[in-house]
Amino acid sequence: MELKADERIDDLGIRGYRIIQSENGFCFGMDAVLLGNYAKPKHGAKVVDLGTGTGIIPLIVNGKNNVEIVHGVEIQREVAEMAERSVKLNSLEEKIKIHNIDLKEAPETLGVNIYDVVTSNPPYMAIGEGLVNENDRKQISRHEVSCTIEDVCKTASRLLKHHGKFYMVHRPSRLADIFVSLRANKLEPKKMRFVHPKVNAKPNLVLIEAVKSARPELLMAEPLYIYNEDGSYTDEVHEIYGLDREQKE
Amino acid sequence: MELKADERIDDLGIRGYRIIQSENGFCFGMDAVLLGNYAKPKHGAKVVDLGTGTGIIPLIVNGKNNVEIVHGVEIQREVAEMAERSVKLNSLEEKIKIHNIDLKEAPETLGVNIYDVVTSNPPYMAIGEGLVNENDRKQISRHEVSCTIEDVCKTASRLLKHHGKFYMVHRPSRLADIFVSLRANKLEPKKMRFVHPKVNAKPNLVLIEAVKSARPELLMAEPLYIYNEDGSYTDEVHEIYGLDREQKE
Repeated sequence: MELKADERIDDLGIRGYRIIQSENGFCFGMDAVLLGNYAKPKHGAKVVDLGTGTGIIPLIVNGKNNVEIVHGVEIQREVAEMAERSVKLNSLEEKIKIHNIDLKEAPETLGVNIYDVVTSNPPYMAIGEGLVNENDRKQISRHEVSCTIEDVCKTASRLLKHHGKFYMVHRPSRLADIFVSLRANKLEPKKMRFVHPKVNAKPNLVLIEAVKSARPELLMAEPLYIYNEDGSYTDEVHEIYGLDREQKE
Repeated sequence: MELKADERIDDLGIRGYRIIQSENGFCFGMDAVLLGNYAKPKHGAKVVDLGTGTGIIPLIVNGKNNVEIVHGVEIQREVAEMAERSVKLNSLEEKIKIHNIDLKEAPETLGVNIYDVVTSNPPYMAIGEGLVNENDRKQISRHEVSCTIEDVCKTASRLLKHHGKFYMVHRPSRLADIFVSLRANKLEPKKMRFVHPKVNAKPNLVLIEAVKSARPELLMAEPLYIYNEDGSYTDEVHEIYGLDREQKE
């Protein structure tokens, strides 16, 4: 497996899976890891990950669940190609398929009303929010240049079958936009979990499960704290990252 | 001041204010106290409290801020009359006015587009949710029999002036309904704070500040924890309840 100049291979700690990341361009974040663990597709589920980046979420979802297939959709050619190489690196071509398409085209390419689960760790910032550098390679994945929350929700709803589940990680500051777009696309928010850096800190991420055509009622989960007061990871974060080392051994 | 058989008078710990409560019917909860402290109207503000119950929120808002007037709106005659007596008990007739009307009529009675702040601790349960006892005197204040989230948001928006603030306390399970109704009525959710019984527990209340015709962006606050692990109140709850004992002394 040949790597480009700024790429490296990391061990994911899940069934021995490895992933290619690009130091100056594309690395996955903890948010993607949390989402990959939050979504728990059933045995034999068909899954789509919208805006898959390095392919981290398909790798986790496939590694931790007994799914039939995970489609990863990524608009950026260079990044999709990197995810594709990670799939080959793990010989998972039969379980994970990367598609270098705009997610808005995904229903046409992948089929409508047939998926059990859709996941997405979309760009967080609205256009005009935060600093935008035209030369920043990460712009598309950070800002809603190529897709908005509305695009993601609309696409997820079209892909999902009746009562299919949509899992998203996002910033709490966008919650009003998220709920309005989910509802407008027949995705009912059913579960929500806030992620706090530590006990007395504001939540800076939110994990959401929405169900297509479900009745309204939103269950809150216990908060997920990342760090203890002494700066070490909490037991739950250790479990999320460490669980599969046991599986491997 | 004559009391009915099941009534008692309690000291609020704010400027010596006292409040009448009815043991079998109407007592205020911690949610109302939290909301009364969350809303911080500016000097000279005109305020409306929708579904005022015992009048606890007008008493706190008037006691802790230098407002011009607080109108308390309460549909139940018996309860409105009790709140009215609490106002008289404290000689606050010039600062707090109780109106025994349906909150949907409040804009006609009180005027549109002129209020700085609207507060509401509305019924939490949708019709059909939870046990409904036809003989339960508390039904109107617990279930959306007389007003829905949509009614409350629509009324608040009509009362408020441009950039006026709406403060609500509610259950997190209704957040999708709340955000959709706020947006539909030009009230943009700007701040949100979750209330957790303790550190590792799910939030069971949410405090929301929405601003009329503001641009979207929701700021999350640090969580508010009610109890310490040993069952005692946290410092913050002590501060909310205790601050004014000092003022009094």
